[in-house]
Amino acid sequence: MLERLRIVLIGTSHPGNIGGAARAMLNMGLADLALVAPRCQVQCQESASRASGADALVASASVHETLEEAVADCSLVVGCSARSRNLPWPMITPRAFGATLADEARLPDARVAIVFGREDSGLSNEELQRCHRHVHIPTNPDFSSLNLAAAVQVLAYECRQAWLADQEAAGETPRAEDDQPFGIDWDSPLASHADLERLFEHLEKTLISVDFLDPEQPRQLMARLRRLYLRARPDSMEINILRGILSAVDKQVRLAQADTANRTS
Amino acid sequence: MLERLRIVLIGTSHPGNIGGAARAMLNMGLADLALVAPRCQVQCQESASRASGADALVASASVHETLEEAVADCSLVVGCSARSRNLPWPMITPRAFGATLADEARLPDARVAIVFGREDSGLSNEELQRCHRHVHIPTNPDFSSLNLAAAVQVLAYECRQAWLADQEAAGETPRAEDDQPFGIDWDSPLASHADLERLFEHLEKTLISVDFLDPEQPRQLMARLRRLYLRARPDSMEINILRGILSAVDKQVRLAQADTANRTS
Repeated sequence: MLERLRIVLIGTSHPGNIGGAARAMLNMGLADLALVAPRCQVQCQESASRASGADALVASASVHETLEEAVADCSLVVGCSARSRNLPWPMITPRAFGATLADEARLPDARVAIVFGREDSGLSNEELQRCHRHVHIPTNPDFSSLNLAAAVQVLAYECRQAWLADQEAAGETPRAEDDQPFGIDWDSPLASHADLERLFEHLEKTLISVDFLDPEQPRQLMARLRRLYLRARPDSMEINILRGILSAVDKQVRLAQADTANRTS
Repeated sequence: MLERLRIVLIGTSHPGNIGGAARAMLNMGLADLALVAPRCQVQCQESASRASGADALVASASVHETLEEAVADCSLVVGCSARSRNLPWPMITPRAFGATLADEARLPDARVAIVFGREDSGLSNEELQRCHRHVHIPTNPDFSSLNLAAAVQVLAYECRQAWLADQEAAGETPRAEDDQPFGIDWDSPLASHADLERLFEHLEKTLISVDFLDPEQPRQLMARLRRLYLRARPDSMEINILRGILSAVDKQVRLAQADTANRTS
């Protein structure tokens, strides 16, 4: 499980923090470090001093130009962030994240990245929007900014605790699953069942009209789409957007049909 | 509860660690720092730099000649230690220690000290034997020595978690939500980050071509769609379906454009 975890540091500007993060990782049994566009020298006296024996991990770190490149093979990307910005995103605590890790790591080809931002400005909105979830370390609201290596320490510690708990629990029955909302105040209310059904009805009609769904041989297409959207638990604004897209597509279909009619007439 | 906790550092030799410990404490809402026979300057450029705004806590630290003096008023003294030495001593994990804190703090005049040893040699046997309990941070047995400030970070974090849990239990804050994966065997592997990015790229192009997305005024449309699909964690078959739908729509758009071209020609 721990070998499927990657720590990604974006735009780090202090070599000491890279060394400190590597030491924290190795202390907790993590060994996959990726650096995105570091703004400092990676291997130097300062990073080696803070790494204090974990310098081989610093030396083995992969270096990337973009976050995309660093997490291209990852099935779950979690961004470490303060409380969410203008657009709320699914948010979990480090402990809750740890609790999901064992199941996550059992998925085939699972690879999980935890992404940490710059010392001065954290992760950009664009970077945060590439993450499935955001993880927030609960801190004193009057002094909330953790040192980068300290934040890596807390997350790596929780991952190791989860790994130890999973090993202890081996043989026991799995926990019952709860269904959870997103863990933070959301900006729009969740869509109602009826909203969702109207979406699926509209979607089905449009898919038939663009010749993607054959009503004679529907197979499991609509079921798969239902599962996808239901899993996401869309809010009402998202439903409006999706229906707006369908209406825009319907308009193109009408134009295309007019064209076909013109040609055949 | 947190105000009854004291962090005691014995014989610290790096001012940066004092600053880092102070920052970790203040991040987690602790404010009582005691230094026993420090082997370095306490207030200096290096400690201020690592304290990064918590320098008032460094300045307010009490300085003592002996451990005895530093914990004289404490009802519970816990020593942070590697696995116990020649004489076994009651040993707890940081999490188990946190779990006892709320009850401990309700005792009249309770004051709890967590004691950390020297960077090079930890706590002496004599010092360890002045502690009610030893607390051991579970680490990688092949690389077990945590940085001093990182160890303070882990313990302070567990204390804050315990405090938050105690407040939740008292109904003062809403419960933190857990996040769950799908909870059952899944039929397709999860999509990779790269698959998802290709989907978003395709989606954006198609939305522009059906006049739903104005590249001059994109607002938060793509961010909202990213949030929706990332939340659902699409599997690779779902990605194929969604891209198939987009291609079918693209075809209609081409037909519609051909129509417009015919009419204007």
